Amino acid sequence: MNNYKMTVQYEGTRYKGWQRQATTEDTIQGKIEKVLSKMLETKIEIDGASRTDAGVHAMGQIANFKTQRKLDEQEILDYVNKYLTEDIAVTKVEKVPEKFHSRLNSKAKRYRYVLNNSNISSVFDRKFCYQYDGFLDVERMEEAIGYLIGKQDFKSFCGNRKMKKSTVREIYDIEIIQDENKITFEFYGTGFLQYMIRIITGTLIEVGRAERSADEIPAVLASGERNRAGFLAPASGLTLLEVEY
Amino acid sequence: MNNYKMTVQYEGTRYKGWQRQATTEDTIQGKIEKVLSKMLETKIEIDGASRTDAGVHAMGQIANFKTQRKLDEQEILDYVNKYLTEDIAVTKVEKVPEKFHSRLNSKAKRYRYVLNNSNISSVFDRKFCYQYDGFLDVERMEEAIGYLIGKQDFKSFCGNRKMKKSTVREIYDIEIIQDENKITFEFYGTGFLQYMIRIITGTLIEVGRAERSADEIPAVLASGERNRAGFLAPASGLTLLEVEY
Repeated sequence: MNNYKMTVQYEGTRYKGWQRQATTEDTIQGKIEKVLSKMLETKIEIDGASRTDAGVHAMGQIANFKTQRKLDEQEILDYVNKYLTEDIAVTKVEKVPEKFHSRLNSKAKRYRYVLNNSNISSVFDRKFCYQYDGFLDVERMEEAIGYLIGKQDFKSFCGNRKMKKSTVREIYDIEIIQDENKITFEFYGTGFLQYMIRIITGTLIEVGRAERSADEIPAVLASGERNRAGFLAPASGLTLLEVEY
Repeated sequence: MNNYKMTVQYEGTRYKGWQRQATTEDTIQGKIEKVLSKMLETKIEIDGASRTDAGVHAMGQIANFKTQRKLDEQEILDYVNKYLTEDIAVTKVEKVPEKFHSRLNSKAKRYRYVLNNSNISSVFDRKFCYQYDGFLDVERMEEAIGYLIGKQDFKSFCGNRKMKKSTVREIYDIEIIQDENKITFEFYGTGFLQYMIRIITGTLIEVGRAERSADEIPAVLASGERNRAGFLAPASGLTLLEVEY
């Protein structure tokens, strides 16, 4: 079997997330599979490294698919970009060893969450940020981040309450970057649970506006209870930047 | 009378241009006037420095309006941004001398036209560029630019065929910036006629793809005939960057 790895970009605004669903055509995976299946005249299934949620974007999502046919990488790239809509693009296609699996082999992922911390709309990238007006104390948020780094059970920060698998993940780093009115949180870790980054961001915002203190984070983590963590920050602010192998 | 100068940003995609029209509510000027009139409980008219066309964007459009009431600049800023839609923002409000007129006093304007020179959609800024796939010879375009710089009659590059006023304008500079697949044309001049930048861009593209030679530009200029110049490049690629006073 031939195995092809693709780098994928998308604006998630009008999609119900990455993962294919039987009840809707509006998923990124579904759209790409449809085009590849048409090209190869057989049903193609792709695996994505991250199951991004409805409304979440990607700069460097990774997916792979297998096919009996040996194809030219450039031919795949040209074909899919011709038939995909403008809010999804495949930016790279590479032939990879048959055993490569985009999700199972991924070692780390980078995401960013962007706040437009202003009462003025950020006209040119408003679809890629969450407009939140109100003072945020960055020092307080930095302090909270100190408690989140490391290998821990993030059950309290998991959106899926029926999650049966391990909820242990390792966060290598969360960096806060301020640029004029933009506050960007860059997340780097082994992988993230459903809604985990958005719940962490919501919690950091609550710390930043002094609704809760940074030093209660260890107790939130220890509780394993979703309702002890902060609100779910909106999907629009979140972008998957990169998957590492 | 109190005179207020505003800096305005917008994504022009869903508007019929800057200028107020009796037949539609979908103009930038119309939207801002509506909000200001509501705030001041009297009909407010604003003057814009540039009458950007349907679909054209702005980072730094300048407009001004006069009112009997003395207002706090911050209050205007907060009010208009609260009521404007997300694709229009007023980023600055300044009280200016009563004689200031945004269009009549402007000394120079900067615009940029962005080409996504690729068959792959530029997902994150696709609304702000024109996707044109095909080889463009930048050296040829640079040569053509040499003939366009300076104070000249740009009648051949004017979209309004019934234009009665002078069609003489001065272009100080047109710079081509290449960054991966993006080719950006930066225009700097006293002012530009209707469609002038988009017709120049269309002409440069035709030179870049060797459909016409650079050294025919002087004859195109001398003819005063619109049909001697190139095609009208799509509005999506054009953004008004700055107005100088």
